[in-house]
Amino acid sequence: MTKEPFQGELVVAVVGAETPGNVGTIARAMKNFGLSKLLLVDPPSLDPDGEAYGFAGRAREDILPNAAETTFDSLIENYYTIGCTATTNEDARSHVRYPAMTARELPDHLAGLNADVALVFGRERVGLTNNELARIDAICSVPASAEYPSLNLGQAATVVLYELRNLTVSDSQHPEQLHERAAEADLERLYDQFDSYIEAIDHPEPKRDKASRMFRRLLGRAHPTPREARTLHGLLRRGTERSADWVPDENDPDR
Amino acid sequence: MTKEPFQGELVVAVVGAETPGNVGTIARAMKNFGLSKLLLVDPPSLDPDGEAYGFAGRAREDILPNAAETTFDSLIENYYTIGCTATTNEDARSHVRYPAMTARELPDHLAGLNADVALVFGRERVGLTNNELARIDAICSVPASAEYPSLNLGQAATVVLYELRNLTVSDSQHPEQLHERAAEADLERLYDQFDSYIEAIDHPEPKRDKASRMFRRLLGRAHPTPREARTLHGLLRRGTERSADWVPDENDPDR
Repeated sequence: MTKEPFQGELVVAVVGAETPGNVGTIARAMKNFGLSKLLLVDPPSLDPDGEAYGFAGRAREDILPNAAETTFDSLIENYYTIGCTATTNEDARSHVRYPAMTARELPDHLAGLNADVALVFGRERVGLTNNELARIDAICSVPASAEYPSLNLGQAATVVLYELRNLTVSDSQHPEQLHERAAEADLERLYDQFDSYIEAIDHPEPKRDKASRMFRRLLGRAHPTPREARTLHGLLRRGTERSADWVPDENDPDR
Repeated sequence: MTKEPFQGELVVAVVGAETPGNVGTIARAMKNFGLSKLLLVDPPSLDPDGEAYGFAGRAREDILPNAAETTFDSLIENYYTIGCTATTNEDARSHVRYPAMTARELPDHLAGLNADVALVFGRERVGLTNNELARIDAICSVPASAEYPSLNLGQAATVVLYELRNLTVSDSQHPEQLHERAAEADLERLYDQFDSYIEAIDHPEPKRDKASRMFRRLLGRAHPTPREARTLHGLLRRGTERSADWVPDENDPDR
């Protein structure tokens, strides 16, 4: 993630939404993925006790009350506009919905750019009209099943904003490493301990190498964390010590 | 995308959802991204005239009516379970939520696997409990803003299912190429036509090379489609021909 940062302002514009709940869902996704400015063209009324605020999660505290009403003309005049649409079943003969970028390509397209950008989402049923799309600068689409490619408005916006997270979220909730692998030396010590263990439990000598390799392969695929390696090492060491001290029970019938 | 295909059955399990709308949203995302089997543990009642069906889009026709109720125990017994959770603010000292994969890592993790897999999503407010997560095989999380990492249940599932699309969707709605670049030879012809054009309009000779380079750089960044290259070529050819035929107007005061 050593891309050039995006240097402009990135806003979300929703055109002609009919369902307040979708506006709330979009506001929540904006807050989840580090955006703050929401522009609305012909919005439904957003009752503070209604669905929009109910769906917005903590975005009800800031993004939703600060959402500004605007016009489509104003979007076109003031922003580099990217229109999001499901239907791109056109080819190079048309210029309305073709060429298009996938949502995943968006961050690369915007990285390093110094311009104000509006991500434009359309109505629930018909999305953005061809007339609107024709005036928009670039087209973005979420690849989905050909059988049913039409995402709900709020879900489509969630995916697009999720894809932009590396440009918009500086700190995620995750620790620096979601999966820290144990140091190689600690893993080697663990493998040595395993060898001592199979010796101590008197695993038949001709089979020890094979068991040893099995253990290395299994753990090799799982990338043990430092804690996992240390715990497993300790458990095997205890078993090794106890097995080494083990005295056969003269009365054990299985002996 | 030449990964090994996933070879098992991939199901979605929702544990303890309170809001029928979220179940509907998840069903819709499943249909959008090529999944079909939905399992519900302690579900809310799903009225065919209610919110769940209202939010499900065309998944109301199949995924939702075919959703099966099951138990958490049955999930653990029958599937390789992947629990999805927002909060992973733990490190290697704990084994409940650590290590975790990001949603983006999931397809690689599952590619080539021959096993039945359940993606498990939890309740609206508290997600999956620690007791539940402890019994689950692997942990997955969607990176989001540290300030507000908690995605709505339906939105979290949408992102995870979106990320799995390459394993689950064989045909997307997109044409084979969302952005077909014109053949290099056609672009070279376009650049030659541009050179003829600036000659025909009597652009000062010392400036022609620079203008020519400007045009190549501009179009080089935009990757013109075949249609764009052809149309632009035609428009420039007409302007070239007309300019070459141009006779100065003796009466033009600007002459």
